Order: sequence, then structure tokens, then C-alpha cells
Amino acid sequence: MNSIRAFAPATVANVACGFDIFGFAIEAPGDVVEIRRRDEPGVVIKEITGDEGRLPRNAEKNAVTVVMLHLLKHLGIKDFGAEVVLHKNMPLGSGMGSSAASAVAGVVAMNELLGNPLSRQELLPFAMEGEKIASGSAHADNVGPSLLGGFVVIRSYNPLDIFTIPVPDDLYCTLVHPDIEINTKDARFILRSEVSLKNTIAQMGNVAGLVAGLMKSDYELIGRSMVDVIIEPVRSILIPEFNVVKLAAIENGALGCSISGSGPSMFALSKGKANAESAGLAMQQKFADAGIESSMHVSAINKNGAAIL
Amino acid sequence: MNSIRAFAPATVANVACGFDIFGFAIEAPGDVVEIRRRDEPGVVIKEITGDEGRLPRNAEKNAVTVVMLHLLKHLGIKDFGAEVVLHKNMPLGSGMGSSAASAVAGVVAMNELLGNPLSRQELLPFAMEGEKIASGSAHADNVGPSLLGGFVVIRSYNPLDIFTIPVPDDLYCTLVHPDIEINTKDARFILRSEVSLKNTIAQMGNVAGLVAGLMKSDYELIGRSMVDVIIEPVRSILIPEFNVVKLAAIENGALGCSISGSGPSMFALSKGKANAESAGLAMQQKFADAGIESSMHVSAINKNGAAIL
Repeated sequence: MNSIRAFAPATVANVACGFDIFGFAIEAPGDVVEIRRRDEPGVVIKEITGDEGRLPRNAEKNAVTVVMLHLLKHLGIKDFGAEVVLHKNMPLGSGMGSSAASAVAGVVAMNELLGNPLSRQELLPFAMEGEKIASGSAHADNVGPSLLGGFVVIRSYNPLDIFTIPVPDDLYCTLVHPDIEINTKDARFILRSEVSLKNTIAQMGNVAGLVAGLMKSDYELIGRSMVDVIIEPVRSILIPEFNVVKLAAIENGALGCSISGSGPSMFALSKGKANAESAGLAMQQKFADAGIESSMHVSAINKNGAAIL
Repeated sequence: MNSIRAFAPATVANVACGFDIFGFAIEAPGDVVEIRRRDEPGVVIKEITGDEGRLPRNAEKNAVTVVMLHLLKHLGIKDFGAEVVLHKNMPLGSGMGSSAASAVAGVVAMNELLGNPLSRQELLPFAMEGEKIASGSAHADNVGPSLLGGFVVIRSYNPLDIFTIPVPDDLYCTLVHPDIEINTKDARFILRSEVSLKNTIAQMGNVAGLVAGLMKSDYELIGRSMVDVIIEPVRSILIPEFNVVKLAAIENGALGCSISGSGPSMFALSKGKANAESAGLAMQQKFADAGIESSMHVSAINKNGAAIL
């Protein structure tokens, strides 16, 4: 095989109450990576589309190729020659897991090109290295679901303990991206390093409720559990019209609504596609009322994650 | 009906990572309450056995009758005459939900005597009032499972949102009570009011893991999730030999081991009764090595909660 194309989906991390521990994949959009073997040694970036020239073209500084270089090094493969094309299909710094999608598509494509020496689960640490390049810390709440699909729980980072839980078939995600940008590092920087025990207990209750609600297909419980008393009150300050948009989602069919990742994208979960669409249109209208353009994606939960095209 | 006897089981609250949000009921021991109607108005305590004379005999100060008085008041029933006998079958201040069992048995018995005007779920706030009398705050993590049975999650206290989750059939609890006493108010007092964000995230991961592990019947995940980085490191200081006893449980068949409620009882969860018994014997031996007598109870999870006898 001399050429591979891989797709990796956008993801919603945190999922209201589950800061750093929850994430799920959606069906679209997603990044596409093409790798072609070439005779000269070295992995080079040939082209990136959709990033308006903002991502590094140096293979050692871009998440999409960093993951490939880590994988090649791990496997002891030297002098491997490949050129890489990355099609960015989602905005950078959007809270949709943009860098994670590139890293996952990159490592899945390279693994396939090499004849799949590693399993999906084994690729996770490599994808996390790509995330580290982009956001400064090796998180798994975007790369996990983009790689594995479904609703992912990261029980522990050290040692890494990650698993998926079933979700109801009729659960739909609405993702609305307002045309403003938040740097992930900034969004992390404004968080307090201490949490009250009272808020910790409230958050744990919602974490337990969301897991149980998803596994029981109890939509009402899912909605009641989509409450974040720790992170959202701080980060939402960075998103204009946050409270108005959130309320519009819930009043127009959504079970709950919060920040996707570190924002500024907002997501909602709904029972059924019609609710997800009406919630999304209401959210977009509220952004529009404040003069903010936005894009919307409505999707079921992506149960498969990254795919070879 | 002129006479009623009700049983309410002991419970394990917190369950390692789930401070104030998790609790489950065991099959035995449990308290038994008898109510007999009498002609003179007023609810009086006729007899209490098994408390070595330590519980208040004043009906307005004892959890078992406070719950009855609240229920009568709520129903607008005046001049009701009844005498109450309470058989305490577990030690006070043991971390086994002793006051909760008395409150639950009391309110279930009175509700039955009155022809069941309220559902089990509706009795919960009354049972919580009894808990408040005994421990100073109206918690639900003991009264919830003692009343409803099973593994209970309290998602929220305000408004109260409580539900049960399924547990694997072969899950057994070992409860070991060392013959020392901790006051619940003291055990709460020594906790810090702030938690690091890092520990909050770790605890949330374990909460999610424990709920998923129980619902998936994934015993290994249950064990890995029985980790408490917030409360146990503080409260375990009050339990002599805690680390040695915990290690003995895990090395002798238990999936995990932690403090039951606010202690000093320790509990372990195991796959199968044989593991639960060998873990318990090892725990008792370690207490004995330090000159501390203990009692042990091995039981499946009680799925029914309180019962009319």
C-alpha cells in the first residue's frame, strides 16, 4: 500500500459536568489526512487545506505529523519517506477537538500504511502526544472519542484507564460554533486550582447521573445531569451571549446545553434529530441577534470514531 | 391494624469515591421497630434494646420517633396514640448507617400502620429528618438505600434527585466493625472545605468508573474505581491500622476496600461470597494483631431495602 486516506471526527469534550473525563465523537465534520509514500526519507507536510495558512508546516511542530514521527520511532522504523496532506474541515481553536481530529487521523493513517502494527487502543498515547503539541497538555477527552468513537470516559490518566459507555440510539448532538476564537491554553489558565467540597459533591452527583442516564437511556436524567458548577461558570464568561444561547437551546427541545471543550463552541444534547435541529436554530438566532455569525452541526453520536476512507 | 414490625437494613455510604452521593444496603444486620397503637394520644418510646441505654428515650429527640412525628404532622393526624419499641442490632457511631436504619424502620412502620398513605420514595424526606437529628445534617446516602434498597445515587440534594442503579448479582459486601467509635460530626469536621481541581477530576473519573462498572457488571472496573483521593486520606487517620487492613482485604480477594460512611467500620466489595469472606477474615486478623476486636458481616447487596415483618 502506498497511499492512505483517514478520517477522524470532531468531538465534544467535558460534556458539561465531566471536565477532562468525558468526551464523545460526532459524525461530521472531521479532518481528513492523506499519506503517500515517497522515495526520499523523512515525513513532510505537502499541503494543508482549510487552515488559512495558520498551522505549522514543519512536520516536527504539527500534531498531524508529530504523531506519525512518534509512531515510527516507537516501531523502530527509520528512513521512512512519506508526504502528508491535511484537510482541515473544522475551525482551529473552536472547542470541537480540531487538533485531536488531525492527530487521530494522522496516527490512524500511518498505522494503516504500516499494516496496522498497533490496535486502536494502543494508538491512544501517540494521539495524545499530538494533542500535547497543540494544547500544551496530553489530554484524552478529545483524542479518545475521535479515535475510538462513542461516549468515552477517562477514569484515570496515570495509569491511563479509558472506556466507552453505551448511549441511547435517539440521542443527537447539536454543535454551534460562533465565529470567535478562544485559545485552549487561555481557557485552562483562567480556571481556579481549588474547588469547594460542596461543588465537588454536586459535580460528582451529576457525573454519576450522566453515566447512569446514558446507560439507562433515561433522557430526563441525562438532561438533569448536564450541569457544570465548576468550569462552566468561569469559562462561559469568555463566550458572548452564553446564558441566552443556553436558555434558547433548552427552551427549544434540548435536554441540556453547555460549552464544547474549552469553547467557544456550544453543544446541546437532545432526544431526536428534530429537537436537536430546533435547539440549534434557536441557538444560532441568539448569536445572530448579538451580531455573531455561527455555524451549526447536528449529528448522532458517532459510534465508530476514526475511519480509513 | 394495631401493631406493626418493620426492618431496615444497615448501609454503606460514600462507597470510596462517592462522598455524600453513593450508598448501598446490605442484607443484615438491620434495626427492627415495633409500633403498637394505644388509647392515650402521643407517641412514646416504650423500650429500646441493644443501645446500652445511650439513645434518648424522649420521642422528640430520637430519630426513630422524630420521623413518625413528622409524618403524622404532615398528614394532619392529631392525637394519635402509639408506643414504640426499637431493637438496635448494630452499634451506634459505627459507620453502618445506624441512625438511618432506625429512622427508616420507624417511618416505614408508621406509614404501614396508617395504611400506606405515602410511597417509599415519598417517605425519604421524613427519614432524612431523622438523620438530621442524629448526625446534624439531612443526608440521604444512608437513609436512601436503607429505605429503597439497592445501590443508590443521590444526584442532587436541592432539589432531591435520587435513583438506584443495577449491581452485578455476584457482588458481595464485607463489613468489618472495629470496636472503636467515631462521632459522625467529628468525622465531618476534620474534612477540608476546599479540594484541588486535580483531585476533583480524579474523583469524578472514579465516580464515573464505579457507576459504569456496576451497570456493566465489570468487576475489574469496579475495583479500579474504588479509589477515594479526597475523603479517605483524611478520615483514615481516625482508624487505627487502616492501611494494613485495607491492603489485607485487597490481597485476600476483595476488589477494593474503603471506609464505610464516616467510619470506623471498613467495607470491601468482592466478586463472590468466598472472596468476601476471606477478605473479611484477613481484615479482622489485622485488627486483632493490633489488639482491636472486630465484628464482621458478609452480605449480598440488599435489593429491597426496608421491609414489613
